[in-house]
Amino acid sequence: MTSPRALVSAYWAAAEARNWEAFGRLLSVDVVYQAPMSRERVSGRAAYLRFNAEGFTGDWHLAVERIVADEVTAASWIQMTDAGETYPGLTFFEVADGLIVSVTDFWPQVYEPPASREHLIERI
Amino acid sequence: MTSPRALVSAYWAAAEARNWEAFGRLLSVDVVYQAPMSRERVSGRAAYLRFNAEGFTGDWHLAVERIVADEVTAASWIQMTDAGETYPGLTFFEVADGLIVSVTDFWPQVYEPPASREHLIERI
Repeated sequence: MTSPRALVSAYWAAAEARNWEAFGRLLSVDVVYQAPMSRERVSGRAAYLRFNAEGFTGDWHLAVERIVADEVTAASWIQMTDAGETYPGLTFFEVADGLIVSVTDFWPQVYEPPASREHLIERI
Repeated sequence: MTSPRALVSAYWAAAEARNWEAFGRLLSVDVVYQAPMSRERVSGRAAYLRFNAEGFTGDWHLAVERIVADEVTAASWIQMTDAGETYPGLTFFEVADGLIVSVTDFWPQVYEPPASREHLIERI
């Protein structure tokens, strides 16, 4: 049975390749996608394939920064490049019977740290 | 030797308790904290303890939503409540010799999804 780490690695490789057939083979028929910060939910493999294939048609590219995985869950940190900008995506996965059953992702934005902690940090 | 999962669990428990002595015992002397979206870096245990103890003095509380861990890395998803608002924090950890050597966190903000994918989602 495919491990959560291998599933997530294959998930991002299939997304980068726009290979939605391979992508779909990693998903449970009941997979649920959620993006808490934009309050989006997509339920079921067919809808989630459509969401990916039709919702993001640009010339984006991704690189996996880190995958952490145990027996039933995984988390990934990717760098997405789109329209000349690169930004991170953080995703939490749940796996059952060798298939991805839930995907929850976060797309944080750039912000300025408060002046109150300026003396405690250095800027990268 | 303390596992990455146990370290991260203890890290958030110590933060919630403002037990900076216990918090410090989980960290390598060379720990590096980074917040990529605000371009903040804090280097070394002493500086990172000061950053936490002095940089965030409000009446915040956190609850762990999920911890994913393997042998040398971990990721956590927490819910932070501060000033009546609750929002997620996503953190990636690296561990060596039973101590946390790097902490990278992300604090995503609320955003509206583009109208172009409105027909592909439901709102949570």
